[in-house]
Amino acid sequence: MIEVVALDGDDTLWHNELQFSMTQARFCELVAPYAPDADLDDKLLSTERMNLTTYGYGVKSFTLSMVETAIEVSQGHVPVSVIEQILDAGKAMLSHPVELLDGVVEAVDALRDRYALLVITKGDLFHQESKLARSGLAERFHRVHIVSEKDEATYQRIIQGEGVPPERFLMAGNSLRSDVLPVAALGAHAVHVPFHTTWIVEHVEPEEAAQYEFSTISSLWELPSLIEQLDS
Amino acid sequence: MIEVVALDGDDTLWHNELQFSMTQARFCELVAPYAPDADLDDKLLSTERMNLTTYGYGVKSFTLSMVETAIEVSQGHVPVSVIEQILDAGKAMLSHPVELLDGVVEAVDALRDRYALLVITKGDLFHQESKLARSGLAERFHRVHIVSEKDEATYQRIIQGEGVPPERFLMAGNSLRSDVLPVAALGAHAVHVPFHTTWIVEHVEPEEAAQYEFSTISSLWELPSLIEQLDS
Repeated sequence: MIEVVALDGDDTLWHNELQFSMTQARFCELVAPYAPDADLDDKLLSTERMNLTTYGYGVKSFTLSMVETAIEVSQGHVPVSVIEQILDAGKAMLSHPVELLDGVVEAVDALRDRYALLVITKGDLFHQESKLARSGLAERFHRVHIVSEKDEATYQRIIQGEGVPPERFLMAGNSLRSDVLPVAALGAHAVHVPFHTTWIVEHVEPEEAAQYEFSTISSLWELPSLIEQLDS
Repeated sequence: MIEVVALDGDDTLWHNELQFSMTQARFCELVAPYAPDADLDDKLLSTERMNLTTYGYGVKSFTLSMVETAIEVSQGHVPVSVIEQILDAGKAMLSHPVELLDGVVEAVDALRDRYALLVITKGDLFHQESKLARSGLAERFHRVHIVSEKDEATYQRIIQGEGVPPERFLMAGNSLRSDVLPVAALGAHAVHVPFHTTWIVEHVEPEEAAQYEFSTISSLWELPSLIEQLDS
């Protein structure tokens, strides 16, 4: 019997990657005139990867990496007016309205009375709290965990904190890397809810995923009936 | 009888404000040639205050505010090489070794066997976790709370989570605003451990502080004996 159901935030409850992609497109547009031969998407990704151990995840880290990349690829020729526009683009992301994915409200309402319902989301504490507050969903969750990394150790700590064995815990989210594989590895129930875009850093090769046991649904509103099936 | 003892991180367990001050001095040095008439400390503080609701606390927010201020006060005349140096200064803060305050190890060791020992620290999740890990103290604490704001609601939630009444909970830290007054307001024990420098945003007028009941010690190593006195 599943007792605890945990949901991811970004691109599971609300849109996220779309805003990153749009801002990145704007970044390329702004910087391209000063680095006509550079593959800007690729350069930005290398900067982000390199900065991950110093900055961690989130919009502020992304903004700082955009500024750094703009200066680097232009060999210092990008004008400060572009830097200013990059800062503005970052701020716009932070204050962007929270847009829930289809079926989220229905799923959350169907789950909250029957299970201990958690959010487990990764990234910037301040921004994640702000998004949860603005989502209108905060009160419907029993507990919220904002973590810096979603690995086996993190999930183990949370499951232990809930005082249940792994087989009574279920996690659903869009990222195989962060929401599904580490949960499946612990012997808990993992549910993949793919989103059409995944950040390349979260990418998992099919052969790697094939080694784990998990369910896949196309929208969060399928989750309540999936759990009933798993329990029967 | 006090059962739960919570300690603040920045400028209570380890140095923090000193690095901000030193980086801010470097910022002024870098930007002054392009804004000779500006009060750079004051301008940076206004930017930080203005950005607090968008960025939250922490080094990444501070770095973004430095870049924004440099562009603004120079009316766009600051060269990108200075922006680059500001980014570097921010990264240097994030990777700076964690320096414990005097008496911290002794206090923590004296407290950990007798009380449930917590850290309650505010700011950037990723950086606070990194500092705690690098402090060498992480294993000595029973629980760690990294929060986005230290107000009455936050402390109430933590005290409830510990399952004790407020009078069995004690919090010690260097900030009257964040560590002392909201704790005292809840009827829990609050202990002020002043640090020689306090960020101006944390400043409390003496008349405001005088309305609350709390203890003051000059170093964390006085805490174990203070708790014994409070308990006797």
